Amino acid sequence: MLTLDQARTIIATARATGREKGMKPLSVVVLDAGGHVLAFEREDGAPVGRFGIAQGKAYGAVMIGVPSRKLGEMYAERPHFIGALGGVYDGKVVPVAGGVLLRDKATGAIVGAVGITGDTSDNDALAGVAGAEAAGLVGEG
Amino acid sequence: MLTLDQARTIIATARATGREKGMKPLSVVVLDAGGHVLAFEREDGAPVGRFGIAQGKAYGAVMIGVPSRKLGEMYAERPHFIGALGGVYDGKVVPVAGGVLLRDKATGAIVGAVGITGDTSDNDALAGVAGAEAAGLVGEG
Amino acid sequence: MLTLDQARTIIATARATGREKGMKPLSVVVLDAGGHVLAFEREDGAPVGRFGIAQGKAYGAVMIGVPSRKLGEMYAERPHFIGALGGVYDGKVVPVAGGVLLRDKATGAIVGAVGITGDTSDNDALAGVAGAEAAGLVGEG
Amino acid sequence: MLTLDQARTIIATARATGREKGMKPLSVVVLDAGGHVLAFEREDGAPVGRFGIAQGKAYGAVMIGVPSRKLGEMYAERPHFIGALGGVYDGKVVPVAGGVLLRDKATGAIVGAVGITGDTSDNDALAGVAGAEAAGLVGEG
Repeated sequence: MLTLDQARTIIATARATGREKGMKPLSVVVLDAGGHVLAFEREDGAPVGRFGIAQGKAYGAVMIGVPSRKLGEMYAERPHFIGALGGVYDGKVVPVAGGVLLRDKATGAIVGAVGITGDTSDNDALAGVAGAEAAGLVGEG
Repeated sequence: MLTLDQARTIIATARATGREKGMKPLSVVVLDAGGHVLAFEREDGAPVGRFGIAQGKAYGAVMIGVPSRKLGEMYAERPHFIGALGGVYDGKVVPVAGGVLLRDKATGAIVGAVGITGDTSDNDALAGVAGAEAAGLVGEG
Repeated sequence: MLTLDQARTIIATARATGREKGMKPLSVVVLDAGGHVLAFEREDGAPVGRFGIAQGKAYGAVMIGVPSRKLGEMYAERPHFIGALGGVYDGKVVPVAGGVLLRDKATGAIVGAVGITGDTSDNDALAGVAGAEAAGLVGEG
Repeated sequence: MLTLDQARTIIATARATGREKGMKPLSVVVLDAGGHVLAFEREDGAPVGRFGIAQGKAYGAVMIGVPSRKLGEMYAERPHFIGALGGVYDGKVVPVAGGVLLRDKATGAIVGAVGITGDTSDNDALAGVAGAEAAGLVGEG
């Protein structure tokens, strides 16, 4: 089980990583293993609609069991499949890097996902992986 | 009319086929002729969101009267049409192989569909057809 | 973590309880701790739309953390609150007995819920609790 | 404009108030003046679906310009009106105390809302008002 303290550590570290590397304002959500929101922060200066994008990256990852970067690669090969997932999961799938699976270090089990949006999607994912590691988890981004 | 015993046979055989051929954990739904859920099982280790994908493969098949594999082929020719069906049917269309029509052996009438997800979509469909045959039906996948 | 074997035991026992006590055809869903469908069966003779009712009983229970019977009692006192939950959870809340929380025997943690519909809601709940016990869990109905 | 630092202060103070007064685990969301999510935290032990309820309390308050407690009172007089708002605002209205308007101290302008759920709705609102004050705002709950 992911705790709120872990979620807060993930968000704090992702944000610190963004500041350190000069990224644009980040929005960071942490979802639990069932895809339910545990914590979220949107940095000042980010567009107002960022919650949905961050959630969509992380939610798709949890539902389908792969990082959102992989969903983007799958979209290139099979747009009809990945496109349809938006309907299946009520619009909450954003198949772009930045949705990082959170795995337990010992068992490898998925315990949730962090979704980040604000900078390039590669940088978003990088910040998410840093957050995962700070919380003692493996981040698969 | 499809019975629950037939649905259970379809699911048991599809799952046994998956285990025998070394497929990844399968999720299997059986819908009746009206597209309503009759039975479902999600094997341990499958991602949490599999019900929706299995349902989407089978639901599209029943609603449009062709296997979901055919919906994928139609998508390649007319993406605007098949893409729009996601809206028409409230997101419950996944145009990818694995949604197998169930037909009565004597009359050819559609009595439902089985939707499978977990392995390659060809393997998903193969497991569904095996299930259909075990239940005394024709599986059109 | 709830396993598929446990879910199948819950469904089989709930159905056997229904047959033994002369209940009408039952529909039984098992959801995991995140509210995602793990297994479902609809007995022959049940109306076609039963999946949604079974799911709504169990989903509301998992999301709000109380049995659906309790949601019905809360509705009598505060209809504006419980009524609004249908909107919050996208229509998937049926505040009527028959949505039974599944709790781990040792820790008391919610590991999922079983939702049953078909007979009186008291009988539905009774069948769900029997199922939970057969699977080595505590059923709070 | 509400800042993320203010939102974090609101959440931290609401949570501290809850701990101090022995409330059950709280979930706290802060929305901006447009009703968009700025920050959220769900304490360990809260049911998984709490984000939606917290959001619904705060969203209704911002959209209609009154605290969610007032929406509950309006519901008693005009259920057809307040009930219809769930449809208008896509299910995101929970007309129960705990959605506290955040107002600028100098101008009185609405700058957002905090939505809290977990304990009695009176206590939820009390924690939200404490959070507003700690952030230098007026909390109208």
